[in-house]
Amino acid sequence: MATDLEIARRAKLLPIAEIASRAGIPEAALEPYGRYKAKVALDFALGRSEAKQGALVLVTGINPTAAGEGKTTTTIGLGDALNALGTRTMICLREPSLGPCFGVKGGATGGGRAQVAPMEDINLHFTGDFHAITSANNLLAAMVDNHLYWGNGHELDARRVSWRRAIDMNDRALRSTVASLGGVANGFPREDGFDITVASEVMAVFCLARDLADLQARLGRMIVGNRRDGTPVTAHDLKADGAMAALLRDALAPNLVQTLEGSPALVHGGPFANIAHGCNSLIATRLGLSLADVVVTEAGFGADLGAEKFCDIKARIGGLAPAVSVVVATVRALKLHGGVAKAALGTEDVAAVERGVVNLARHVENMRKFGLPVVVALNRFTSDTDAEIAAVRAAMRVLGAEAVLCTHWGDGAAGALDLARAVRAEIERGAARFQPLYPDAMPLAGKIGTVAREIYHAADVAIPPPVLQKLAKFEAQGFGRVPVCIAKTQYSFSSDPTLLGAPSGHTLSVRDVRLSAGAGFVVAICGDIMTMPGLPRHPAAETIGLDAEGRIEGLF
Amino acid sequence: MATDLEIARRAKLLPIAEIASRAGIPEAALEPYGRYKAKVALDFALGRSEAKQGALVLVTGINPTAAGEGKTTTTIGLGDALNALGTRTMICLREPSLGPCFGVKGGATGGGRAQVAPMEDINLHFTGDFHAITSANNLLAAMVDNHLYWGNGHELDARRVSWRRAIDMNDRALRSTVASLGGVANGFPREDGFDITVASEVMAVFCLARDLADLQARLGRMIVGNRRDGTPVTAHDLKADGAMAALLRDALAPNLVQTLEGSPALVHGGPFANIAHGCNSLIATRLGLSLADVVVTEAGFGADLGAEKFCDIKARIGGLAPAVSVVVATVRALKLHGGVAKAALGTEDVAAVERGVVNLARHVENMRKFGLPVVVALNRFTSDTDAEIAAVRAAMRVLGAEAVLCTHWGDGAAGALDLARAVRAEIERGAARFQPLYPDAMPLAGKIGTVAREIYHAADVAIPPPVLQKLAKFEAQGFGRVPVCIAKTQYSFSSDPTLLGAPSGHTLSVRDVRLSAGAGFVVAICGDIMTMPGLPRHPAAETIGLDAEGRIEGLF
Repeated sequence: MATDLEIARRAKLLPIAEIASRAGIPEAALEPYGRYKAKVALDFALGRSEAKQGALVLVTGINPTAAGEGKTTTTIGLGDALNALGTRTMICLREPSLGPCFGVKGGATGGGRAQVAPMEDINLHFTGDFHAITSANNLLAAMVDNHLYWGNGHELDARRVSWRRAIDMNDRALRSTVASLGGVANGFPREDGFDITVASEVMAVFCLARDLADLQARLGRMIVGNRRDGTPVTAHDLKADGAMAALLRDALAPNLVQTLEGSPALVHGGPFANIAHGCNSLIATRLGLSLADVVVTEAGFGADLGAEKFCDIKARIGGLAPAVSVVVATVRALKLHGGVAKAALGTEDVAAVERGVVNLARHVENMRKFGLPVVVALNRFTSDTDAEIAAVRAAMRVLGAEAVLCTHWGDGAAGALDLARAVRAEIERGAARFQPLYPDAMPLAGKIGTVAREIYHAADVAIPPPVLQKLAKFEAQGFGRVPVCIAKTQYSFSSDPTLLGAPSGHTLSVRDVRLSAGAGFVVAICGDIMTMPGLPRHPAAETIGLDAEGRIEGLF
Repeated sequence: MATDLEIARRAKLLPIAEIASRAGIPEAALEPYGRYKAKVALDFALGRSEAKQGALVLVTGINPTAAGEGKTTTTIGLGDALNALGTRTMICLREPSLGPCFGVKGGATGGGRAQVAPMEDINLHFTGDFHAITSANNLLAAMVDNHLYWGNGHELDARRVSWRRAIDMNDRALRSTVASLGGVANGFPREDGFDITVASEVMAVFCLARDLADLQARLGRMIVGNRRDGTPVTAHDLKADGAMAALLRDALAPNLVQTLEGSPALVHGGPFANIAHGCNSLIATRLGLSLADVVVTEAGFGADLGAEKFCDIKARIGGLAPAVSVVVATVRALKLHGGVAKAALGTEDVAAVERGVVNLARHVENMRKFGLPVVVALNRFTSDTDAEIAAVRAAMRVLGAEAVLCTHWGDGAAGALDLARAVRAEIERGAARFQPLYPDAMPLAGKIGTVAREIYHAADVAIPPPVLQKLAKFEAQGFGRVPVCIAKTQYSFSSDPTLLGAPSGHTLSVRDVRLSAGAGFVVAICGDIMTMPGLPRHPAAETIGLDAEGRIEGLF
C-alpha cells in the first residue's frame, strides 16, 4: 500500500496562483513561497467586505483513541466533496508542529487521498509561522531576564516569573531547567523551562487576533510575571510588544495551499487544544468565509475539548456562528470506548460498538447545546462489519442524527459525497441557532462549572480556596468577562483518561487557574497537562532522511 | 538625514525574476519567497558547469573599532559600481542574525545607498534559513538527551556531552543552564547551555557543504560528546543526520535578493568569524562564480580573523582562489588605532592617522602572504581632512598599494567607481597566485603557530600540555589534515582587545581546542569567546515596532 508521502508525491499540483484565482484571490494579493504555497496579503484578507459570509462547518470528533478517528482527513475529504458537488468551499486547518513530526505522530496534513500538499513543506518549516511565533516568545523571555539583569525597574519578583521559553520540538530535557547560571555576567539564576511552541500564549494570541493592531495590543497585555505585591508585569511594560508584532507581521498573513484534489485550503496557526483553544487562526477563517460559500474547519481533540473551545472562545471572540457540526467517529474507536482491547479490534463485536457508541451520542447531544445541527461522519475501515455499522446508525437514529459512511481516505472526494450532501442539506435547512454555552457576564467559576456539567457531565466541580482566590483576583483585575479554557485530558469526558465511553457523576478537580490576558481567556488546569512532549525510544526522526534525489523520505 | 530604512523604502525594487534573469538564472530555477526574495533551486545551483569561473574579490578590513569601517557597504557599493561599469557582478553576503538586530548592532544589510533589500525581511526571518539551522541543532540536542533517557545504548558520558542547544537570540540567561530537572520523567539532570545560532557547528557545516550528500555526511560526523573512554559519539551514531538534513534541505538553496541599485546578491548562511569561518555559504559563492564575471564577497571581522579563515578554511575546503583582496579602512578608525579617543574623532589629527595606519599596513602585507593583490578602500566621512587622507595614501604608497576613496554610502555606485576600476585593473593584471598559508599536512600545533606568527605577528604560542594532548588525539582520530580556526578577539592582532595598531612580540595563549569534525576544522580558543551575546540595558527591540500602516519601524 502506498504511503501518504507516496500518494502526495504522485499528485499533480496546480500552481498556487491558479488555486488562488479559483478561490477568488487575485494574484496581486498573493505572496508566493515557492510554487505551491503562498501567503494571502494581510491587506487583502482584512479588507474583505463582511457583507457576504459563507456557511461555517465545524468538524469535531469523539474522544480520541489509539485507533485514530480521521478528523483531519474528514475535514479535507468533506471540502473536496463539497467542491466536487459545485459548492465553492474553503478548507481551514491548523499548521502542524515540528515536535510530533519527529516524535511518534508523524505529519498532520491528512492522509491517503485526503491530504493537503505539499506535505513535506507543510509538515516541516512551511512558511515559517511557527518559527516567527517561537522567536517572538523567546524575545520576550530574553527581555524579561534582561530586565532583571539591568536593575529590574519594574520590580518583577524573579520567583514569580511565569513567562516560559518556547521551542518547536519535543524535548523533555527542557521542561524544567535552571537558567542564568555561571556568575554575575549571566544574570540571576532562577527556575525556568520551555513549552512546545503550540502551547505558547503567543500562539493563542496569533490565532485570535483580528488584525495587526489587535495582535500588538494582545501581545502587550500578556503577563510575564508578578511583583511581590501580586500586581502583574506585562510585555507592554517591558516594551516588547512592538518588536514581537514586527516579528509576527508577515506570519499573520494566512497560508494558502491545495488538497490533492485541488481544493483551496488555508493552513494557519495551531494552538494546543487543552491550555489553548485548538483551532486555526481567526484571520484565516474570516478570510475563508468572505471568499467561499462554505468553510470547513476543524477543532482539536474531541468535541468536549476542541469544539467547546471553538464555540466558547474562538467563535465568541471572533463573532463566528457555525452552521453545522460534523462529529467524526470510527467503528474501531467506538469499540475501544466499549472496552475492547486494541489487539482485538479486527474481530466483529457489535455489543462493544453498542457500549462504546454512548461516547459519540453524548458529543452529538453536546453540540446541539450550542444550537448546532449535527451530522455524524463514520470513517469506514475495511475491518468494519455491516452489523457494527448498523449498530452505530441505529444509535444515531434514536437521536435523530444521520451517520454517514465515508471512504475519502481511499477514494478522495468520491468517498465523502454523501457526507457533503448531508452537510449541504443541513446548511440549506438553516436550523442552526448558534450560541456559546454561557454568557460573558457569568462569573469565572460559574463558567467552569457550566462546561463541567453541560459538556463533561460532571456532578461536581472542586475548586480549592486558593484557586477560587485567584479567580476572584482575575475578576478584580477586569478579566471576569473572558471565557474559560479548560485543560484536561482529551481521552475522556472526565479528567481520568481511562474512563472511556460516557462517564457521569464524576467531579472535575481544578488544580490551578492561569490568566492568559493577551489571548483573552482563563485556563483552568484539571489534571496533569503536558506542555512539552518527549520523544519516544525510537523517534520518527531516526528514519526521516533524504533519498538519492534529495527528496525527503520517512515522513508519514 | 534619512535612515537606512527610509532610504531602502524609497527604492523601487525590481521583481526578483527580473534580477534573476539578468544574472543568468532562469525563472524555472527560482523559488520565489514573496516578490523580492527567491531561493535559487539547488539542482540549478549544483548543476552549473565549472568550466566558466568568474573572478573572486574578497572584501576584508582592518581590526574593527567603535567607529565602524563599512565592510558590508563597500562589498555592496563595489558590486554596484562594477555592474555600473558593465562588469557582470554578483555580490555574496552573509545572512544577518536576529540576535544583534534586537540588541545594539541593528541590521546587517549595508547602509545608506549601499544596501541589499528588502532590508526588513533580510534582517528578520528572511527565507527561514537560520530557523532551519536552529531546528536542526536542537533536534540533535533533543535526540542526545532522549538517548540518555532511554538507556544510553552508546554509553555517552552525560558529563562529556559537548553538544549545546541553539537559539537565534541574544539571551545571556541561556549561556549556562541545568536541564532535565524535575524528576524521573524529565531525564538525567546535567549542565547545559545555548549558543546563538550563528555559533552552532550546524551553521559552519551548512556553509561549507558542497551539496546535500556532503551536508548529511558532515552533519553525521559532528561529535555530540564522548564516552568515559574518550571515544566520540556522533550525530550519525544517534541516527540524527538524516532528519537534520531533511530540515536543512530547502534552506541549502541560496537566496537571491537585489541591491538598491539593482545588482543581484546571494545572501546565504552566516557563521561567526571566531569559532567558525565567518563567511557566506560555499554553495552561494560557487553559484555566483558560475554565473558572473566577478563575485564580490565579504569575510567577517578584520582580515586577521575573517580573511585568514576565508583563505585557509573556506577556499581550501571549497577549492576557491580569490583574485583580489580589498581591505577596507576609514580615517576615523585608523585614528582610534592611533590612540585617539572616540570623542575626539572630529578633530584633525594627522599624527594619529600616521600612528594608526600601521594596522592597515599590516593587513595589506598579510593578505599578500596568501598571494593576493590588495586594493585599499578608504570609506570617506565628511569629517576626514585632506591631510589625513593623504597620510593614509602615503603609507599605502610605501607598500605599493593603492588607497581608493569611496563614497558609496552617500552616492551609491557612483561613489565606488574608482574602487571598481582599481579592482578590475587588478583582476585584468592577473597577478594573484593564491595559496593558503599552510599545507594540509602540517601538524595542528604547527598550523596554529603559523597563523600566530605570520598573521598575528606573535613571538610565541603557548599551548598547555593538556591542550597539546587533545591536538594529538584529534590527529590520532584522523583529523590532523584539517585547517585550524582560531577564536580570538577581533579588536587586535593579539589576544588582548586593547592592543590596537600593529602589536608584535606578544604570546598567543591557546586556552583550549575543540574538534568541529563535521565542519572540518579544529577551533583553537584564545581568550574569552562569547558564543551567546546579551542584550544591552536598552535593547533595540524596545523601539522596533509597526507603524499605522503595519510597516516595520525602528530597524536600522
